Amino acid sequence: MFRSHNFSAGPSILPTEVLQKAQAELLDYNGTGSSIIELSHRGPEYVEVDAQATARLKSLLGLGDDFEVLFLQGGASTQFMMVPYNFLGDGKSACYLNTGTWSKKAIKEAKILGNVHVGFSSEEQNFNRVPKNEDIKHAEGAEYMHFTSNNTIFGTQFRTEPESNGAPLVCDASSDFLSREIDVKRYGMIYAGAQKNAGTAGVTIVIIRKDFLAKARTENVSTILSYPTHVGTMFNTPPVFGVYFLNLVLEWIESKGGLKAVQQMNEAKAAHLYAEIDKDAFYRGTAEVDSRSLMNVTFRLPSEDLEKKFLKEAGELNLDGLKGHRSVGGIRASIYNACPRESVDALVAFMADFRTKNS
Amino acid sequence: MFRSHNFSAGPSILPTEVLQKAQAELLDYNGTGSSIIELSHRGPEYVEVDAQATARLKSLLGLGDDFEVLFLQGGASTQFMMVPYNFLGDGKSACYLNTGTWSKKAIKEAKILGNVHVGFSSEEQNFNRVPKNEDIKHAEGAEYMHFTSNNTIFGTQFRTEPESNGAPLVCDASSDFLSREIDVKRYGMIYAGAQKNAGTAGVTIVIIRKDFLAKARTENVSTILSYPTHVGTMFNTPPVFGVYFLNLVLEWIESKGGLKAVQQMNEAKAAHLYAEIDKDAFYRGTAEVDSRSLMNVTFRLPSEDLEKKFLKEAGELNLDGLKGHRSVGGIRASIYNACPRESVDALVAFMADFRTKNS
Repeated sequence: MFRSHNFSAGPSILPTEVLQKAQAELLDYNGTGSSIIELSHRGPEYVEVDAQATARLKSLLGLGDDFEVLFLQGGASTQFMMVPYNFLGDGKSACYLNTGTWSKKAIKEAKILGNVHVGFSSEEQNFNRVPKNEDIKHAEGAEYMHFTSNNTIFGTQFRTEPESNGAPLVCDASSDFLSREIDVKRYGMIYAGAQKNAGTAGVTIVIIRKDFLAKARTENVSTILSYPTHVGTMFNTPPVFGVYFLNLVLEWIESKGGLKAVQQMNEAKAAHLYAEIDKDAFYRGTAEVDSRSLMNVTFRLPSEDLEKKFLKEAGELNLDGLKGHRSVGGIRASIYNACPRESVDALVAFMADFRTKNS
Repeated sequence: MFRSHNFSAGPSILPTEVLQKAQAELLDYNGTGSSIIELSHRGPEYVEVDAQATARLKSLLGLGDDFEVLFLQGGASTQFMMVPYNFLGDGKSACYLNTGTWSKKAIKEAKILGNVHVGFSSEEQNFNRVPKNEDIKHAEGAEYMHFTSNNTIFGTQFRTEPESNGAPLVCDASSDFLSREIDVKRYGMIYAGAQKNAGTAGVTIVIIRKDFLAKARTENVSTILSYPTHVGTMFNTPPVFGVYFLNLVLEWIESKGGLKAVQQMNEAKAAHLYAEIDKDAFYRGTAEVDSRSLMNVTFRLPSEDLEKKFLKEAGELNLDGLKGHRSVGGIRASIYNACPRESVDALVAFMADFRTKNS
């Protein structure tokens, strides 16, 4: 079986074992004679899949009964609108940290629906860092503080949850969800598109604390946009394949030893790659060292011509998906949970070789 | 390979050949060494999938350049909100035909956002029919007329597009999309969740005529909820597996001879089943004869005890998913495109046998 070294930023590499399991049972799920995607979402098979995925998420993240888990659709871009739709309006305000393209989009959507205080922005430095706690300017009375835990495009990541002046945190965790342990009690809400560490595009995981959920507005709201609609029920047909696949990925994370073990693997992979970047001035990381992401490693080469050559030669070795986003240029290696250590080793070996030949 | 006779209302049976193709290439799409669900949605492989699905849909439905095709998320329930969000407000009104559970939900969401004139309702007859044209009461100045072409729960279906007093039709075609030819020039918009005839849950197909689209409001709108956002671009990560699978299903429909051929197969399957129902008074169709659906065939037996026995014995023969929705009770056989003639034959044979033994 040929599998490339896949460094795509998302949709991105998935565990081979999970793909193999999905493949094996695609025409006959558990002896039913039907695919899981052919069975009613109200039937016992899918109801069990949904319940398993919920239980596994709660167990892996250490979520107590004070949290609800929802499987929605529409990606983080839909949450950019749903969060202020539910929690702003009527003169309410929220604090947002502007640390990249996706934060900026979240802010834009929140401003349409409520009052936004931008507590930090690194936009003028082309988003090369996330704030230290002392960089954040708070405003009183924020309903929540929104941040993007990992900035896929700019290769930056919050090391720990930012200080929020008492406001519950609302986090777009799309690109580092399930990659490490987090301090769940700090959060009112965590949302993530699944297509990085949690599975396939098309399912959005929303984790919401009950006391925060209780503040969602309920008058004159469109049913599908209201978080309470989706609690404890499948309001409409869920993205069956996405939730099914998520459940398999969660099972795989369990088999690896849970989030702590996964985090250690991710830290080791990232350390190996950043060490190669930092060896001399040939490669140059684009993010400030304190803000470097464990998920998306962004770097430049001495010239754009060399970057083109790098990408071409990498592709010939099946090192795929390495082109940086146009906002940053250069190279981006996305090394999510499912990216094997061997792929990082292969990339590092190529980088060392490329430096030698082109310095 | 064991495949059951799957009569589930949705998610529902899919073509075996399509599942086999998806299975074969799940770990290595076209020699890339990655699954299609592991590849960037901006990369050449997925861009081609998206373009193929669009072109095939346009060709099968006979859509000219005056139509846009969008692949969204959130199901028909999201469209119930997005249609009035885009086209109502500011005193504008629309006409809705109330022919079942889903129509009623669409009306509820439209009333939150605009003025709704209900031009017909069969709710007092437990939605046992759709209107004839002369039953519809029009109001002047409607921005559109909304109808549900097939009512999955109640087993009714419009034979042809309803007369709309000049207003463009907006159709929730979720449960009969791609099952027959339609008169596309009558429509401003057609939307459908894919999980009946078009593939897997998690992708919503939206077809919208450009002159209708041009009337969408653009001021102060949430980006993700605005139809123009999604035209000619992938605004955010699409439901990759869903669009990929849709493309395979469209290819399968082409291989069957297109919509006209599929329609003939569907008419023959339904005729066979309704003939068995109408043979005597043992089985009793719940929909008025003129309104009967070719997709969801709903019927009762002489008693609820016999219905339970019917379902139990059917299940033993791998005739699955036949339990009627609680709003109607009894039996519902969903016989979408992918339901083979052999499954309908097996069901009819069982029904004849069951009648003989229980009359």
